[in-house]
Amino acid sequence: MRTVYWHQQHVRMIDQRRIPWELALVDLYDVAAVAESIRDMTVRGAPAIGATAAFGMALAAQNSSAQTVQALLAELATAADLLKASRPTAVNLAWAADKLMAIAQNGNFSTPDEIRNALLQAAQQIADEDVEINQRMGKIGATLIHENDTVLHHCNTGALATVDYGTALGVIRAAFEQGKKFHVLLDETRPRLQGARLSAWELEQLNIPYDIIPDTAAGFYMRRGEIKLALVGADRIAANGDFANKIGTYQVAVLAKENGIPFYTVAPTSTVDLSLASGDDIPIEERDKSEVLAPFGGAIAPAHFNARNPAFDVTPANYLSGIITENGIVRPPFDVNLRRAVMGEQV
Amino acid sequence: MRTVYWHQQHVRMIDQRRIPWELALVDLYDVAAVAESIRDMTVRGAPAIGATAAFGMALAAQNSSAQTVQALLAELATAADLLKASRPTAVNLAWAADKLMAIAQNGNFSTPDEIRNALLQAAQQIADEDVEINQRMGKIGATLIHENDTVLHHCNTGALATVDYGTALGVIRAAFEQGKKFHVLLDETRPRLQGARLSAWELEQLNIPYDIIPDTAAGFYMRRGEIKLALVGADRIAANGDFANKIGTYQVAVLAKENGIPFYTVAPTSTVDLSLASGDDIPIEERDKSEVLAPFGGAIAPAHFNARNPAFDVTPANYLSGIITENGIVRPPFDVNLRRAVMGEQV
Repeated sequence: MRTVYWHQQHVRMIDQRRIPWELALVDLYDVAAVAESIRDMTVRGAPAIGATAAFGMALAAQNSSAQTVQALLAELATAADLLKASRPTAVNLAWAADKLMAIAQNGNFSTPDEIRNALLQAAQQIADEDVEINQRMGKIGATLIHENDTVLHHCNTGALATVDYGTALGVIRAAFEQGKKFHVLLDETRPRLQGARLSAWELEQLNIPYDIIPDTAAGFYMRRGEIKLALVGADRIAANGDFANKIGTYQVAVLAKENGIPFYTVAPTSTVDLSLASGDDIPIEERDKSEVLAPFGGAIAPAHFNARNPAFDVTPANYLSGIITENGIVRPPFDVNLRRAVMGEQV
Repeated sequence: MRTVYWHQQHVRMIDQRRIPWELALVDLYDVAAVAESIRDMTVRGAPAIGATAAFGMALAAQNSSAQTVQALLAELATAADLLKASRPTAVNLAWAADKLMAIAQNGNFSTPDEIRNALLQAAQQIADEDVEINQRMGKIGATLIHENDTVLHHCNTGALATVDYGTALGVIRAAFEQGKKFHVLLDETRPRLQGARLSAWELEQLNIPYDIIPDTAAGFYMRRGEIKLALVGADRIAANGDFANKIGTYQVAVLAKENGIPFYTVAPTSTVDLSLASGDDIPIEERDKSEVLAPFGGAIAPAHFNARNPAFDVTPANYLSGIITENGIVRPPFDVNLRRAVMGEQV
């Protein structure tokens, strides 16, 4: 089953807020609902919200009663803005919305229906390619996992974070499918606990051996020499290799460096934003303090207590051993090699 | 109000499991209940459980119906073993139990009642001295906090972690009492959330400005240059300055070093265990996975999911800018200077 897909003229997705307790589906019938599903984390994970935005554009086109190409393009521009405003950090969201907008605007269409068909086809293609790219990254990255390794993983990067298969968790999955025996430590990833709830749920399904650990314990296991490799995803990668990812990623990177542990991010080249020179330019979303004080309704402290909740951090490229993409493992110098990979060169 | 004290011939303490929701007191009428209060974290924090163990010994003596010094000493030895077995990492626990045992055994007593009186007096003295030592450390450490600083703090080290006033949080309190304006970021400190629940509750009472942050965000604020000082407590310090403290402390230390931020532990010299050459010899308690999967009853993942839960980690001395004790700030070389401070020399 895919995380998000086109179903009977609307968008259907897994409600990730109800994982690990149940596998529930949500039906979205207009683009406002699609934008809200991104904002409220019904869907999360950079590649998954990219595909969701693409389907959102296709849905906006289909729902429109515009009679002219001009009128439809105006409505689509509004839809793209709405989708792009839902969350600021992951580039895949803007990438997908802009890509579909560009297709609609390319001038080859003489009727609104032609645009409607083209956008649905493009969204389907983004979704299909995401799965294919993930499987390719999985095979490429699996070479880094060795028999009896323990691999540290942060946040969620599996099938749920993508259309299917996963990025960093896809690498773990590919290594497991190759018959390798190894263990995974999952950072629980406060405040939203994507590691404990989503990644653990996925590894349970796949029968891959794992333990959830509090984020505070990653360094403990690194210093004991137990961890041989650290894998994370990425929400946006700047031209120099700096990248934004779930809050706590920077800490994993620093601890890995301090302990001599290889540290990789796994991301399709669509996550690279060559328009940004460095990670300092990536906008960081700050979310409501209630996510810290009352995770999933169970209050851990009174609601009036003060808390901060930055959702992402930026890890400088110098902490990276490499970036695992569908075009190979990008190694330093990232400013040169990342651009080559984005242009489609095998690196 | 003190965290633990002698009340009408028994031990009374604040039930820390009910903070921040209510200030409830628990009465303990025998040494088994005292040991259980340490094990189940009704009381926590190395100095607080040290004083609790001392009162536990006094209570065991008082409850004993022994008619001879010999018989009472035998019962006290059993009581000391029971108390020392309740938690393994903090040295203050064994230090206090052994200290009271040594007083009982010193040969100057001819009747059981003399021992009973001496132990109660010794326990009271440990409690009183703890408060006085904390206030002294507070004044010494407050010199490190400057106007407009942001100070990072891990776990709980305040009045609740001690008999009163606190160690690392005592330094923060002393600086605030001196009229300095600064901000505190409190690591929430998963899995038991002592930062979000206990430290935040204390700073609320004291009107000291603070924000709770997820443990994943400490590095984010360090890299942004917002944090000027990091303060933690200690559960046991080895002769070379390596120290055990709440899980996640090592990570704070590594991140502080990476970002050029001074990093101090604040602990009375009773926390130093000169019998241990290095931190590798400190036993690390691993607690039940339910603390990770269901913090305070609200399950975040199914109970059958796998999780690990190490309660402490060891930070090597080379990450420390200094150790703030009641005898001054101990600086490197720690193997020499720590011993001097323990022997009572002002450093």
